[in-house]
Amino acid sequence: MIDRLIAGIRKTQAPIVVGLDPTMKLIPSHIRRKAFAEYGETMKGAAEAVWQYNKAIVDAVCDLVPAVKPQIAMYEQFGVEGLIAFQRTVEYCREKGLVVIGDVKRGDIGSTSEAYAVGHLGQVRVGDTMCRGFDEDFVTVNPYLGSDGVRPFVKVCREERKGIFVLVKTSNPSSGEFQDRLVRDEDGRERPLYEIVGEQVAAWGADCMGASYSNVGAVVGATYPEQGRILRSIMPKAFILVPGYGAQGGRGADLVHFFNEDGLGAIVNSSRGIIAAYQQEQYTEYGEENFADASRAAVLAMKEDIAQALAARG
Amino acid sequence: MIDRLIAGIRKTQAPIVVGLDPTMKLIPSHIRRKAFAEYGETMKGAAEAVWQYNKAIVDAVCDLVPAVKPQIAMYEQFGVEGLIAFQRTVEYCREKGLVVIGDVKRGDIGSTSEAYAVGHLGQVRVGDTMCRGFDEDFVTVNPYLGSDGVRPFVKVCREERKGIFVLVKTSNPSSGEFQDRLVRDEDGRERPLYEIVGEQVAAWGADCMGASYSNVGAVVGATYPEQGRILRSIMPKAFILVPGYGAQGGRGADLVHFFNEDGLGAIVNSSRGIIAAYQQEQYTEYGEENFADASRAAVLAMKEDIAQALAARG
Repeated sequence: MIDRLIAGIRKTQAPIVVGLDPTMKLIPSHIRRKAFAEYGETMKGAAEAVWQYNKAIVDAVCDLVPAVKPQIAMYEQFGVEGLIAFQRTVEYCREKGLVVIGDVKRGDIGSTSEAYAVGHLGQVRVGDTMCRGFDEDFVTVNPYLGSDGVRPFVKVCREERKGIFVLVKTSNPSSGEFQDRLVRDEDGRERPLYEIVGEQVAAWGADCMGASYSNVGAVVGATYPEQGRILRSIMPKAFILVPGYGAQGGRGADLVHFFNEDGLGAIVNSSRGIIAAYQQEQYTEYGEENFADASRAAVLAMKEDIAQALAARG
Repeated sequence: MIDRLIAGIRKTQAPIVVGLDPTMKLIPSHIRRKAFAEYGETMKGAAEAVWQYNKAIVDAVCDLVPAVKPQIAMYEQFGVEGLIAFQRTVEYCREKGLVVIGDVKRGDIGSTSEAYAVGHLGQVRVGDTMCRGFDEDFVTVNPYLGSDGVRPFVKVCREERKGIFVLVKTSNPSSGEFQDRLVRDEDGRERPLYEIVGEQVAAWGADCMGASYSNVGAVVGATYPEQGRILRSIMPKAFILVPGYGAQGGRGADLVHFFNEDGLGAIVNSSRGIIAAYQQEQYTEYGEENFADASRAAVLAMKEDIAQALAARG
């Protein structure tokens, strides 16, 4: 699956993933009104609004980017109806040829991680029949429980030719509270925990290689460019999924350290910055009705920002 | 909500939570056959089997225990249909007066954790209407992203009088890989990471107190009794949810350190050991058809085992 992602990045020349993180406040009022008129101010109404919003954005940007990343929490908040909208979004994006990264941040003890892995990436046996659940291409995984919480995902990735991105250094302000703690490595040296996790990502990924990169990648926030540089060298074969660009404060110039010399190795996520571009001052000319066109313009601007930053590093 | 849990423990004299973690291999064949006859070997068929299995077990044990803990991964593996069975199980258990601990292990950056918190414990705004999603009483939370990933859950707990259990030291074999790493605390002393997380649990919980314990508890595995003893003293007001009893190897005698002198402070989970008791040698007399009676017998045996261990400590 990492090879398909890389092919998509090469084709579009955009190492960009669009975060499909719909909240009620981001959805244009005409979409909400229509959905509520049909289904009421209910979970079903909310889910319908989410789906119509996503569909319009996906239609507007699917030729520009290789991948989307729906954040499942934004769907799960609307209960079962929200998760139906999540599944519908995953299916639609796959039909459009997009690589779908389910931002689910699951992780548990071994047998339980296995259930998450088959439910999101693989197949579950029902009687003599194999059935597929959410069927994303990649998911994000939380490593706090250690190797036996991550390996079931790696196993399913190998069987299904899919991939994962393991949380290493997240983009949020308090990510350092535990992730930056200095710990002793095997050689007795003190190093931040995220480096140790990064080394494990490289180890887990060695068994799950694509042509040039591993199907086991890492999440490292754009808001921590210096840590990105170090992690880039610790995990040379791991693709880095980089959240935190745009709304969270990360800029194009912060991103260069996340890429390898081959111009690959990272894919940058923007959520609100793209899907709610119409709410930003520089895109108000589009108007709320044309929110999807604003999203398209925001993708093009982000592509240019990253290209310039990569060109500037020479 | 912690006060309701404590009242339930006092009433039943059983600090026990039944883990409702259904997998196809655990569900008796007559239940599977009936569900597949009705809905085929489909996700819907699997979800129906899960629901009928859960319902029979809940009916058989609901007067003996204060709480249940459905592990959402075991439902999520069956996609949307599985999550419908999860929701149905939560609702049914609440109707029966049981406290429901959703073992979801969610955790993300602030705004995203907020979505999980409202979806599982609180209410989400749809237009001018507030709607409830999965509506568990407690959920488990993964702390790897730090305070700003946990605080949105605490906020919703305060508003809704609900609770969380934060992963501190999990029951699985490789939990030490990151959780046991020695890190420097503020005083420059080297201590395992789980102690630092435990201290944060105490801090987060201070703002969210019930009568004698906090609504912010911790998960500490029965398989690590010595760590349980230390964490018990680091977080005196935190209730400890203890997985790993039974199938994972924890025994009654391992549990005493998790309790305070008042006989409270811990609630012990058993999943397979109860819900699939009929598959164990000592309960074969019940037969597969009477699996729920075997579950009831297993609860009574577990209650006795814990009571003896607590009595033996004097």
